[in-house]
Amino acid sequence: MKKRVYNFAAGPATLPYEVLEASAAALLDFQGKGYGIAECSHRGKEFDAVLDETIARCRALLSIPETHDVLFLQGGATQQFAVIPMNFLSGPAEYVVSGEWSRKSSEAAKGIGGDKIRVIASSESTAFDRLPSPINPDPNAAYLHICSNETVHGNRFVEWPSHPTLVVDASSEIMSRPHPVARTGIIYAGAQKNLGPSGVVLMIVRKDLYDRIPKSVPKIFNYKVHAEAKSCLNTPPTFGIYVLLETFRWMERQGGLAAIEKRNAEKAKAIYDAIDESGGYYKGTVSDKAARSHMNITFKLAKDELTDKFIKEASAKDMVALKGYRTVGGIRASVYNGMPVEGCQALATHMREFAKANG
Amino acid sequence: MKKRVYNFAAGPATLPYEVLEASAAALLDFQGKGYGIAECSHRGKEFDAVLDETIARCRALLSIPETHDVLFLQGGATQQFAVIPMNFLSGPAEYVVSGEWSRKSSEAAKGIGGDKIRVIASSESTAFDRLPSPINPDPNAAYLHICSNETVHGNRFVEWPSHPTLVVDASSEIMSRPHPVARTGIIYAGAQKNLGPSGVVLMIVRKDLYDRIPKSVPKIFNYKVHAEAKSCLNTPPTFGIYVLLETFRWMERQGGLAAIEKRNAEKAKAIYDAIDESGGYYKGTVSDKAARSHMNITFKLAKDELTDKFIKEASAKDMVALKGYRTVGGIRASVYNGMPVEGCQALATHMREFAKANG
Repeated sequence: MKKRVYNFAAGPATLPYEVLEASAAALLDFQGKGYGIAECSHRGKEFDAVLDETIARCRALLSIPETHDVLFLQGGATQQFAVIPMNFLSGPAEYVVSGEWSRKSSEAAKGIGGDKIRVIASSESTAFDRLPSPINPDPNAAYLHICSNETVHGNRFVEWPSHPTLVVDASSEIMSRPHPVARTGIIYAGAQKNLGPSGVVLMIVRKDLYDRIPKSVPKIFNYKVHAEAKSCLNTPPTFGIYVLLETFRWMERQGGLAAIEKRNAEKAKAIYDAIDESGGYYKGTVSDKAARSHMNITFKLAKDELTDKFIKEASAKDMVALKGYRTVGGIRASVYNGMPVEGCQALATHMREFAKANG
Repeated sequence: MKKRVYNFAAGPATLPYEVLEASAAALLDFQGKGYGIAECSHRGKEFDAVLDETIARCRALLSIPETHDVLFLQGGATQQFAVIPMNFLSGPAEYVVSGEWSRKSSEAAKGIGGDKIRVIASSESTAFDRLPSPINPDPNAAYLHICSNETVHGNRFVEWPSHPTLVVDASSEIMSRPHPVARTGIIYAGAQKNLGPSGVVLMIVRKDLYDRIPKSVPKIFNYKVHAEAKSCLNTPPTFGIYVLLETFRWMERQGGLAAIEKRNAEKAKAIYDAIDESGGYYKGTVSDKAARSHMNITFKLAKDELTDKFIKEASAKDMVALKGYRTVGGIRASVYNGMPVEGCQALATHMREFAKANG
């Protein structure tokens, strides 16, 4: 293995090296066939087997019931921000705004549905330092939309709220833990945090929702048509899907999602402890500790002017991409599934040493 | 290098091995940084440099004037079939139907524009064995849409027709030769034939067209918004774009598009000669020889019942993916830029040997 740094990028993000190695090998040659996995037809038997196995492993890892389809789409979660209301706005829909991404999705939905989009709870007035409360969704709403983990602001719903049609943008926490698929209408996620390269969207859709799709929706944006075509209505991002397969295999080798959740909790605790034990030297930007993300750990230095120095010295210790989002500032450590425990421990050590040296 | 077969797949298709090697290496580690090109932010300096170089090399190879933008989008050419009329249907638009793909694009456009979509010429009545004729477009039409090379039916426009706003789906011949960019409104192409993996669309758009985009178009489908964001409105398919960069570098090493065009003509000639010199044993499905594709060579055996045997024996000689499209039958040899001359010569030799042995 080449020398790897600890890469805390928010997405595209660090992937397990085993996944990269297996994917790079398959790019050059797939199963000794004399061509790579990106070079064969999406309708041929090689890719069809890849697709079947990818779906099956995804189903097994997440215990996805037969009531739900697994789709691999394009356009990122951002495209689904518009396409979900195009498909499923059979009546008013409700959005919870808990950070940058749920705000963006609600705005995109308003562009499609106008007044039918209702923001029923927001924590914007406190700079998203907590989850909105109370959340009292109307069970008759077409759906309730949440972003379960906010990449920019570093909060998460430990428990997803309940609604007959819960729609969850889980981009930045997908498969970082088990998800309650059976009680959701839709879970969707861009791949580029926990699953693989950008350019693939994993979408888990409850099949009964297809009945709501208006006839006016163009085929290419109609989720039912994509489901019937097993994500091959048009050429899917075949190589990206292959990387997801290798990631799912890796997840199983890690012991599955319950084991991954436990490891992620340990990783997050290492850094949050360094914040909480710093005597105020570091301050988490999420004030409600119960809502702290296990994927995106956001904090500031009390001496804000030392932020650049903190980042520079971390970089010298092979820890990169720690700069906070431009509207938030400070530090953001994204610690997706691909980040090893040792990376989080190294960052915690750096935090303690830096505080001591710059007290 | 591992053993490579001659892979005649129609797309996703064979790529130059040098491109695969460089891309696989960058997947594991980008410029010694300790992370791969799929693992760093699309807004960071590493990917920004990749994007700039990819655009610059594309511009240089195609001599793209400053009047046109270069975009990298998602959703395949198929998504653009719908999004182009969403953006640019300022009045009736005209479509030429010369095969499977232009038929599909005209149908998708009708789903958006209804009666505003006019098919002004079609060769469907002769099973697309030639180009439609005559083509008399209305210069006042919002645009004239063609598919310049039909992957399924194996025909092409040697010269693209003229229109003040010519829109060209060039998916299966993009950068197989120089293109007259300056006199086109839009050229678009899925990457998975000549450029790289599926999941990236190259789109070259004349900037003055943006003025026609209705305000009602959702941002994620608005080409002007994508152009202003330099294809980073949302996370682009970063690894796919990196493969395109390696392909563009390879194209330059080949001597540029004029040299590639010449090589492609030689490659196609090798196979067409084997058809034409077979005394009727093989018959090209395109009867107008002037309209024969240099990318997708479609033909049938007079003894149609020997088709499977032909394919099986070719496979034994390491030539794969020769089966024709299901609605056409026979043989299709797709010989994109990534197919070496030797592959075409090997196929021509197989054709001659097979005809001799099965006369």
